[in-house]
Amino acid sequence: MAIRLVGYSFSGPVLRVIICLKELGLPYELEPPASYQSLKDEDYIANKHPFGKMPVLFDGDFRITESRPICRYLVSKYQGKHNDTILIPNDVHKAGLVDQFISYELSYYDPPLSKLLYQEKIAKRFLNKDPDPEVIKQAREELAKVLDVYEKLLEGKEYLNGEYSLADIAPCPSTYYVYGTVTHSDLWDNRPNVKNWWNRLCNRDAIKKSLEEAKSFLENYENV
Amino acid sequence: MAIRLVGYSFSGPVLRVIICLKELGLPYELEPPASYQSLKDEDYIANKHPFGKMPVLFDGDFRITESRPICRYLVSKYQGKHNDTILIPNDVHKAGLVDQFISYELSYYDPPLSKLLYQEKIAKRFLNKDPDPEVIKQAREELAKVLDVYEKLLEGKEYLNGEYSLADIAPCPSTYYVYGTVTHSDLWDNRPNVKNWWNRLCNRDAIKKSLEEAKSFLENYENV
Repeated sequence: MAIRLVGYSFSGPVLRVIICLKELGLPYELEPPASYQSLKDEDYIANKHPFGKMPVLFDGDFRITESRPICRYLVSKYQGKHNDTILIPNDVHKAGLVDQFISYELSYYDPPLSKLLYQEKIAKRFLNKDPDPEVIKQAREELAKVLDVYEKLLEGKEYLNGEYSLADIAPCPSTYYVYGTVTHSDLWDNRPNVKNWWNRLCNRDAIKKSLEEAKSFLENYENV
Repeated sequence: MAIRLVGYSFSGPVLRVIICLKELGLPYELEPPASYQSLKDEDYIANKHPFGKMPVLFDGDFRITESRPICRYLVSKYQGKHNDTILIPNDVHKAGLVDQFISYELSYYDPPLSKLLYQEKIAKRFLNKDPDPEVIKQAREELAKVLDVYEKLLEGKEYLNGEYSLADIAPCPSTYYVYGTVTHSDLWDNRPNVKNWWNRLCNRDAIKKSLEEAKSFLENYENV
């Protein structure tokens, strides 16, 4: 049975799963919710996500929510079945470090990017609020410190865990939006390891296509 | 070679790993850092955790950081080797849902508890600041909504994923501190499924011992 993914392709967590699906060579159907408001409907809460969030993945009758667990599930079940892309290595130590780098993304990398996105995209577009320059300044400072650590983590390596992995997919959505559309690209470009890592990621077919689709969907979608 | 765990046994993320180690029947040595300040030392950043955090686990020469990835690593490597406790089922769907429930803990359950802990324990003890009643009120309201969802998730089940799993260990540390020492136990006790779940967890040997050790360490440790 087909894999169905509930969510908007431009939403960061949904985009993370889409990249993973494309990397694994898995066909899927995207089901955009009727509106953001509909995520809080009784039916959505009962049958999709109990906290009213995206994405939700249906694999036949099996339902799973939350982007990082969905990605790990897809890898556990389908890695190696449709192509030879390895997102989580079989070796228990290497796999542990992929998981560790995903946690770095979630705990340290994502928070300042989320603040910048909220200030410069979400507040403007959905709440008609002007960005707060002080919050932006602090988030940039926080992000600069995090990227200093990433610069060291990437020293002598092409990808976070050496080989390309799910750890590199996790930060793609937020990086794409903040680097590409909110003019903070200097923070990446000033750090050669980080800059080369991001360029390498953007040149991967699955990532390139996913980001292009997200961009085009966002430009043509006014109802969310 | 022995497993070494760097951290204070009362720290929530460290405590999460300790419960997991005890559940798997794994011996370990706890290495408390010299002080909280020492986590930001050059040596700690270079050789323990690049973001200056706890816990860090050394399994022989292998180093891994971040509590949830450490737990998943320990399960992958050692589950079934020292006892028959199953924290992550072999079935790919059941394992996916354990991971999903861990993500619920991280994304929805933990944030209001962290706010309460910060206000009522950390700010008081380490910063000599009085709690802000408005923040506490909002965090309680947020937690009440989250626990309403958990009440439904636990309907007809003894544990989040049906059988006991890593998903139940993840929320133990924060629940222990907020339920047991900050007098918000009414939020759990008013919801029968949630209340019974927490009582069931507290009666497990590995959890009971870990929480008692954390409590005793905290009472006797003044230098952190």
